[in-house]
Amino acid sequence: MDTLGRHLLAEYRGCDAAVLNDEAQIEALMHAAAKAAGATVLLTAFRRFEPHGVTGVVVVSESHLSIHTWPEANYAAVDVFTCGETDCYAAHAVLMAGLGATHEETLLVQRGASAPTESMRFLERTSTPRLREVGT
Amino acid sequence: MDTLGRHLLAEYRGCDAAVLNDEAQIEALMHAAAKAAGATVLLTAFRRFEPHGVTGVVVVSESHLSIHTWPEANYAAVDVFTCGETDCYAAHAVLMAGLGATHEETLLVQRGASAPTESMRFLERTSTPRLREVGT
Repeated sequence: MDTLGRHLLAEYRGCDAAVLNDEAQIEALMHAAAKAAGATVLLTAFRRFEPHGVTGVVVVSESHLSIHTWPEANYAAVDVFTCGETDCYAAHAVLMAGLGATHEETLLVQRGASAPTESMRFLERTSTPRLREVGT
Repeated sequence: MDTLGRHLLAEYRGCDAAVLNDEAQIEALMHAAAKAAGATVLLTAFRRFEPHGVTGVVVVSESHLSIHTWPEANYAAVDVFTCGETDCYAAHAVLMAGLGATHEETLLVQRGASAPTESMRFLERTSTPRLREVGT
């Protein structure tokens, strides 16, 4: 079995605070992101915090997507961890648009036992605007 | 509000296949890991796959912990994403022992809007045995 995974760490800034604070919108957006990636949703777990912020996870057949939002900072942290024939950047595009992010930073990390000496290799880094060059 | 998060990516190899394939044990272990980290569990979502493998997420007040296991490869991928006064390495120690891992690799990444120009900085990398030195 192929245990190779791709893990996209994404930071979104300048996001719409109202969206970040709306559990239903965030959950719908995460479902849309999973669908865009080509992943199959199995389970979801979301929670809204007082006075603000939403945390949620979508468990998919291909691993998971997670989000943590800080509306007061117009910021969200997202992870898209997928195995198999999925497209984590398609999820990223959906999230960028849905959150109304003005700045993003992503880091793509290889996961999995298929590459024992290459585990957690940094595959790619992007940012808008570019804060720095690719680290490795 | 402090939006600074610490995200520990961990790869465990040489794990006990029976544990990796046991949803109840994996869920209990993830709860124990969250507790060791000083995190407060809010929600959980676990699923066992056929013919093998368990996926699960523990949503905590301080963000989340996730696990994906491949018993056939004696391998598990874990993420411990925490904010505030939590100890992700305490969770890591619990997981190492509970999974019976013989080799581990961890990568600690800074997350969060509190450090806009330092986002996703690599804080630390460990491995047993050491596969390579810290990347940055």
